[in-house]
Amino acid sequence: MNAEIITIGDELVTGFRVDTNCAFICRQLTSAGYNIKFTTSVGDSIESMEEAFRLAMRRASLVVTTGGLGPTDDDITKKAIVKTFKRNLIFHEDILSELKKRYAIRGIDMPAINQNQALLPQGARFFPNKNGSAVGICIAEQGKIFVALPGVPQEMEQIVRDELIPYLLSLKTTQNMSSMTLKTTGIVESKLAELLAPGLKLEQGVKLAYLPGYSGVNLRVLARADSAEDAQSKSAELIAYIEKICDKFIFGREDDTLEGVVGQLLLDNDKTLSVAESCTAGQLGMTITSVSGASKYFVGGEIAYANETKIDRLGVDPEIIEQHGAVSEQCALAMAKGARKLYGTSYALSVTGIAGPDGGTEDKPVGTTWIALASAHNSFAHNFNFGTERNSNRIRASYAALELLRREILDIK
Amino acid sequence: MNAEIITIGDELVTGFRVDTNCAFICRQLTSAGYNIKFTTSVGDSIESMEEAFRLAMRRASLVVTTGGLGPTDDDITKKAIVKTFKRNLIFHEDILSELKKRYAIRGIDMPAINQNQALLPQGARFFPNKNGSAVGICIAEQGKIFVALPGVPQEMEQIVRDELIPYLLSLKTTQNMSSMTLKTTGIVESKLAELLAPGLKLEQGVKLAYLPGYSGVNLRVLARADSAEDAQSKSAELIAYIEKICDKFIFGREDDTLEGVVGQLLLDNDKTLSVAESCTAGQLGMTITSVSGASKYFVGGEIAYANETKIDRLGVDPEIIEQHGAVSEQCALAMAKGARKLYGTSYALSVTGIAGPDGGTEDKPVGTTWIALASAHNSFAHNFNFGTERNSNRIRASYAALELLRREILDIK
Repeated sequence: MNAEIITIGDELVTGFRVDTNCAFICRQLTSAGYNIKFTTSVGDSIESMEEAFRLAMRRASLVVTTGGLGPTDDDITKKAIVKTFKRNLIFHEDILSELKKRYAIRGIDMPAINQNQALLPQGARFFPNKNGSAVGICIAEQGKIFVALPGVPQEMEQIVRDELIPYLLSLKTTQNMSSMTLKTTGIVESKLAELLAPGLKLEQGVKLAYLPGYSGVNLRVLARADSAEDAQSKSAELIAYIEKICDKFIFGREDDTLEGVVGQLLLDNDKTLSVAESCTAGQLGMTITSVSGASKYFVGGEIAYANETKIDRLGVDPEIIEQHGAVSEQCALAMAKGARKLYGTSYALSVTGIAGPDGGTEDKPVGTTWIALASAHNSFAHNFNFGTERNSNRIRASYAALELLRREILDIK
Repeated sequence: MNAEIITIGDELVTGFRVDTNCAFICRQLTSAGYNIKFTTSVGDSIESMEEAFRLAMRRASLVVTTGGLGPTDDDITKKAIVKTFKRNLIFHEDILSELKKRYAIRGIDMPAINQNQALLPQGARFFPNKNGSAVGICIAEQGKIFVALPGVPQEMEQIVRDELIPYLLSLKTTQNMSSMTLKTTGIVESKLAELLAPGLKLEQGVKLAYLPGYSGVNLRVLARADSAEDAQSKSAELIAYIEKICDKFIFGREDDTLEGVVGQLLLDNDKTLSVAESCTAGQLGMTITSVSGASKYFVGGEIAYANETKIDRLGVDPEIIEQHGAVSEQCALAMAKGARKLYGTSYALSVTGIAGPDGGTEDKPVGTTWIALASAHNSFAHNFNFGTERNSNRIRASYAALELLRREILDIK
């Protein structure tokens, strides 16, 4: 069953607002077994809406729109529905009295403009809105379903969860699907593909997507089949293959984050962590502590931006900086060891690099980064180059540091 | 001139990823004078892409796509372009050698699969990608322009800013438009609207948009008119009014950032800065140093996450923490003063708060944040509450700290 989403509003097509509603509805409908080929955003124009509604109704058997159902003049979705489906608006006494009741509870007179909210296209079913005045509108026509929902995320989400999805499931026309995301780090997309290629078999209905991001590449397996069991077993087979080939690069699944996984490892092993950051200047500490409860293993760190700070606070020997530079294996090691001593932690991570866009030399081009790990038994530094973009360099360096620690704790070579 | 955006990827139509690329491109094209009626997301299917490409090319004179340009098998945008525009792929030696060079710098052998990245549709112009392997593709046909960009936000954004927009502006086909963004901080959207309302007059063709973000609310003035001069003068009038009313909240224009403005103020006044961060845990240092050249005024800082770190490293009196707690005016002040002494800087900023989602009490609910500033002549702390979402709390706290410093240096009350 194909579905399409149409999100409505000038704020979307001018880019003033990032459209989060679309992804929410896509997730819900995908989980309910729908296949979405297209989603569209359209500005506040009746003509454009009508065009988008007609096209989507031609291509898909379910169309869900959000936005433009408010009571004010700039909310014109209902007008576009009336034009597209050639239906009159009918006044619903029950909807109005429900609205009046809600205003009464809040001790406010209901603004007269809200009477508009009780007008619905003839023959439409409506989905109650617990959080606002605009009910969801559902029109079934020639075996196809058109649904219009309000654009306020909290209102839309409640109606989708409590009304739309149960309604669609009651129609039992949906496909079966299984999806799983494996999260990798420390390997680029093209290298992953090269590793996986030799034995990769994608059965009918199974898709593998490479989703690169700052912390690594997510591998998403999506399987569709006639039964839930078939979808499940198809995806399980591919997942097992990927895990066999890429095991050491996989740090988690689904919503796992590298900082969360490393935090849990520290907790499980009763270890503590500190950091010494030069080019990342807090990015690493910030990433580690984006996990709620990080205070159980993260003690603190030094933002050693200036060389004097590296020397005075972390005890880096000025000779090291003079001989090898602040961006060097020796300096990274001295920083990590210094932090570990200063904070008395099991592990310390350090980062020193040329974040860019300036400051590179022939020997040490922009992006050159040394990351070191110090523990009671082991200290080492690795060299990375993440490219020339300052902020992405710093984010990538932070994740690379966390990956060094993950591999150290799990003894992955 | 109408433009359409098409974002590509199964991760979008299944809702696994919120599409932020679309809004970015919409903003950029709107600012360049384009009018966007529709945007579309489409899954990884050649047929669907071809259908979306053809429809958009029929409706608009500029079509910009993102996604699906990677080297792996699931990246099929180029195949859809070849089918839609009936052009062969041509190998570009210069693109490949540029790629090889980049891998060499990183000390990695280029995976062979990347050779795909040097294949471009015949007759296409390409836009270099500074941060990745997929160049932008630009096809001009029958007075219309089709552009395909990679989907990694950082890569796409760089190409749009540095290549696509200058290219489009060079074609001089855009309407007469004047746009200006005034950047405010330290005041919420509804309060700004209230301040501006009394004398606000929006002439025909002039729009004022409130764009709230982490660092504050951007006010965007957009004026369209028959001539460039008219557009300019219409927008100038509104800008002058806003500046009169909101002066002390406006820290900059267009691409100015609060961290950049504060950095320049420190440079101009020959001052230095250090930080002491508890709940932000590096976010503030990271923000300050996202400005290239920050080493001229930023010395470093202490990530004082644990109480012992506040005591041992910053010299906070344990009595203060015992009596008032680590999230208190007294502790924030002691942290700022401690950092200023430790690093020997003109100014120090400190942040201590309950970032959430847990850890709140009735007295100190989640979001409670104390931010202090210490200088040679003046030390003070302010209390904020930014809400209950951990990461946005920390970002907002960092910007609030920078705003305290901006006002201190400029002596704004």
